[in-house]
Amino acid sequence: MVSQSTDNKHTGDQHLPKDSKARLRLWINLLRASRFIEAEVRNRLRREFDVTLPRFDVMAALYRQPTGMMMSQISRHLMVSNGNVTGIVDRLVKDGLALRSQRDGDRRTWIICLTINGTTTFEKMAAAHEQWVDELLQDFSADEADELQQTLARLNSDWENI
Amino acid sequence: MVSQSTDNKHTGDQHLPKDSKARLRLWINLLRASRFIEAEVRNRLRREFDVTLPRFDVMAALYRQPTGMMMSQISRHLMVSNGNVTGIVDRLVKDGLALRSQRDGDRRTWIICLTINGTTTFEKMAAAHEQWVDELLQDFSADEADELQQTLARLNSDWENI
Repeated sequence: MVSQSTDNKHTGDQHLPKDSKARLRLWINLLRASRFIEAEVRNRLRREFDVTLPRFDVMAALYRQPTGMMMSQISRHLMVSNGNVTGIVDRLVKDGLALRSQRDGDRRTWIICLTINGTTTFEKMAAAHEQWVDELLQDFSADEADELQQTLARLNSDWENI
Repeated sequence: MVSQSTDNKHTGDQHLPKDSKARLRLWINLLRASRFIEAEVRNRLRREFDVTLPRFDVMAALYRQPTGMMMSQISRHLMVSNGNVTGIVDRLVKDGLALRSQRDGDRRTWIICLTINGTTTFEKMAAAHEQWVDELLQDFSADEADELQQTLARLNSDWENI
């Protein structure tokens, strides 16, 4: 659906169906909510744990893959530049929170995983993070959250196949 | 609610209620959806109109205020640094899409507004933008979009009062 081109002759047309207005309002509110929560989470991670959001994201990705990840996998997962990920991983290794090891029989491929210390440190941050999100989204009942999450997950999985 | 501090003694506690898990999953999917749509919109604006997303955002803010905005108002609206906004406005003025004028009786305050050319240019982009969002969010019926948008709007307005 993404490859569908825009008909420039009609882009000035103001008579689009009402549905598109509803979806536009949804997008604007979705973006606003997402930016607000992201900014809050970023500030609290900094304040409570002295950690940046990209570093938290890299640790979260590594936590979910106890057997380790290649740099390219981490980058793809985070949609940030490889350069950033390299710097973050360098610092995690230096701080004793992650390990870089070579894959068996392949000297060119490095596998990154959290150390025990990195795992414990991440679990503390993750629990606090979950509490913050719970508090920020408290207007959603668990059922509402679940329903909405399922719709968004369906959307996200559609997009992954594009 | 934001000022509520995290009790560090409990951040390692894994026995949080099920509701917080639902809200966490909601947040992860909300963030993923928001990042995907933002990246798509950014790419399409660049490809179809050779315009950056921050420039589109500044024009959108100015379009909604035909009487003009002060630099500080634009910055606050966009949650980007004043420095960026200055550069964007400079280029809009240079391209004949915006005008910078002094407020009556106040030589220190500049008011920015779109020119007629800027307004027409923005309307073309906005119509295309609305079509893209409509297409990307087509999995939501108009009613679903409306309902969800109202919940998010309530949330966003709660946060504005923090």
